[in-house]
Amino acid sequence: MAASVSPLAPKSVPDMPVVEGVKLATAAAGIKYRDRTDVLLVLLDPGTVAAGVFTKSKCPSAPVEWCRANLKGAKPRALVVNSGNANAFTGKTGRQACAFTAQIAARVIGCKPSDVFLASTGVIGEPLKAQAFDGVMDALVSGAKPEPWLDAAKAIMTTDTFPKVATARTSIGKATVTINGMAKGAGMIAPDMATMLSFVFTDAPIGSRALQKLLSDGVADSFNAVTIDGDTSTSDTLMAFATGAAAKRGAPKIANPGDPRLRGFRNALQMVLCDLAEQVARDGEGARKLVEIQIEGAVSKKSARRIAMSIANSPLVKTAIAGEDANWGRVVMAVGKAGEPADRDKLSIWFNDIRVAHKGARDPAYDEATVSQAMKSSNISLKVALGLGRGKDRVLTCDLTKEYVAINGDYRS
Amino acid sequence: MAASVSPLAPKSVPDMPVVEGVKLATAAAGIKYRDRTDVLLVLLDPGTVAAGVFTKSKCPSAPVEWCRANLKGAKPRALVVNSGNANAFTGKTGRQACAFTAQIAARVIGCKPSDVFLASTGVIGEPLKAQAFDGVMDALVSGAKPEPWLDAAKAIMTTDTFPKVATARTSIGKATVTINGMAKGAGMIAPDMATMLSFVFTDAPIGSRALQKLLSDGVADSFNAVTIDGDTSTSDTLMAFATGAAAKRGAPKIANPGDPRLRGFRNALQMVLCDLAEQVARDGEGARKLVEIQIEGAVSKKSARRIAMSIANSPLVKTAIAGEDANWGRVVMAVGKAGEPADRDKLSIWFNDIRVAHKGARDPAYDEATVSQAMKSSNISLKVALGLGRGKDRVLTCDLTKEYVAINGDYRS
Repeated sequence: MAASVSPLAPKSVPDMPVVEGVKLATAAAGIKYRDRTDVLLVLLDPGTVAAGVFTKSKCPSAPVEWCRANLKGAKPRALVVNSGNANAFTGKTGRQACAFTAQIAARVIGCKPSDVFLASTGVIGEPLKAQAFDGVMDALVSGAKPEPWLDAAKAIMTTDTFPKVATARTSIGKATVTINGMAKGAGMIAPDMATMLSFVFTDAPIGSRALQKLLSDGVADSFNAVTIDGDTSTSDTLMAFATGAAAKRGAPKIANPGDPRLRGFRNALQMVLCDLAEQVARDGEGARKLVEIQIEGAVSKKSARRIAMSIANSPLVKTAIAGEDANWGRVVMAVGKAGEPADRDKLSIWFNDIRVAHKGARDPAYDEATVSQAMKSSNISLKVALGLGRGKDRVLTCDLTKEYVAINGDYRS
Repeated sequence: MAASVSPLAPKSVPDMPVVEGVKLATAAAGIKYRDRTDVLLVLLDPGTVAAGVFTKSKCPSAPVEWCRANLKGAKPRALVVNSGNANAFTGKTGRQACAFTAQIAARVIGCKPSDVFLASTGVIGEPLKAQAFDGVMDALVSGAKPEPWLDAAKAIMTTDTFPKVATARTSIGKATVTINGMAKGAGMIAPDMATMLSFVFTDAPIGSRALQKLLSDGVADSFNAVTIDGDTSTSDTLMAFATGAAAKRGAPKIANPGDPRLRGFRNALQMVLCDLAEQVARDGEGARKLVEIQIEGAVSKKSARRIAMSIANSPLVKTAIAGEDANWGRVVMAVGKAGEPADRDKLSIWFNDIRVAHKGARDPAYDEATVSQAMKSSNISLKVALGLGRGKDRVLTCDLTKEYVAINGDYRS
């Protein structure tokens, strides 16, 4: 399925700087695709620390279990990611494939297999032929370079229509540090599996506990605030690696996540995570509109999040937006089904800053022509004010189009 | 949008017997549609009792609030249902429309407004012009007859593609009693609103407390075990009315829901509810396949229900079924995201009795051709065995097709 690039793709790709201590290489191992790269090796200098956030699925993939098991006290030296096969629901064979892949990499690099982190995305239920990595690992290790970030982001794509990278600079003490990230999003063709993978690298000398805290905090309003269809992959993985190389340039080593010197870093990391997460929404399957759901006046942030997700995952809301219909009735429905405190007669709803409903009824100033025009935009902002409290939230999603069904329905006949 | 009849519609419509104490009439009040009936009046003999189960939405429609408020101690004499306008999210005007409708009916019948129950389905956010009922109420009351059940079911349709009725007979003591039911399902065109309405009538002399208990119990594995898209209407209403007329033929009056003489009645009621609920699934928007999800081996019935609903509401599972793809990987995904206890390596999955996955990996006997053939059926049974406990459940849904998106997307351009 030759998907054209999403109309919501960012207009430009940032120049990705190097991150001291990180080298990358890609190869075509022939896992599933022809004529494209499907393996990414990231080499990490000694002293690197890692943090990770993984799928909440009760049926996680073998690589997710591998990473979880090895994260504590890890001394990561490499990350191996493949596309084309998710190594999920592959039983014992899947665990063996993980061990084998890590062994190959460890042998060439000269580290322990547990220092090698793994992620896989693609077909599920098919055994991953990890032998394929054996033929390319030497070349990957010897050919790894600090520059090819965009190539790296391309190698981990499945049915993504564009590579996703983001970068930010900030300072810790008087030293400049860099944060680079890449992601792949929720694109799939049957029998492929949606998987969100994202990897972030920095040269900041941050301890693993601090890194984990910043990552765990950061995910709430970035990747966890994006939904394509409410489905959760068995393989979702977000990892961060800090090489500490900036310490040579005078950056202080920081172990405590509460250290005030991390403020700039925290903001920069958040920017990278939010940028990548938004790119994932922009590449939602069949997406023609990027939809931002804003909730205010809920009884709490948590309640606002639940209401936002109920709207963002409602097929009726999403199809209405695809049809350029400011169907606030369906928004009321989605607010109502969230199960959170809501008072119909206090609700107000805006589409792209036009108030369409107010205090439980259609806005007296409602003008069909104005609203219809606004709905033609490829960016839709949907705001709901509940009028109950001070709870706010924001999530991103996309519309639900016939193309989504076509992509996922396969229509084998 | 002239929808053709769902290919999943039942092949025949049952002959609906009369229910002593119940008379029906329909009219075309011109609420929204042209050239079709849109009001149903059901007259109930004095002595009738009522029970009801309503939407869990926190933003219910005005008629739902009306029925809830009047249910306790009700002496129902009439039910007025209209299609074309849901009287939802209409604020004070909506409450006034309810009161006005009930007053008109009460005046003609000679009862209290609170003895009149109401339900509305159709456009939301538009004021309901209840004056329209004024012009037809006299004719409705004087023309009501025991026979026109199918006409009644037709008058409450919105974008349903076929009327939904069901009937059952059983005995209480030595007297035969009848249960008739009708429903309308989840069909909608923007800006219409999906609403499930169902009404059940019996001549059995059952007290209101017993009737409520039987109805509340019965809904769990019938209407609550059906999902089209996981969206919940603001107007969902299921009401039961028992006229007690069979007492004249010797049926004992029963007040206690636990009375063993209600066993046959309980089963017959359940049959009617399940029949109607299945018809709702068969008329899901754009549905081409009826999908039965069976869960076994979960840790509890409740856990099995959550897992079944997670599968039934997964866009990825539903689009795969539309594409006749036995994509068990997506089933694993949906099991995993349910958040209920599940052990990947104990999972087995069947499509139409063909085991495709076993103990956490593809079934060794998996044969693509056989499975593909089975997926062409318009009835798909998807079974998941978790291998953990004795919790079982069953829910019904339908596939997610491009037609669903077309129907709900409106594609105004």
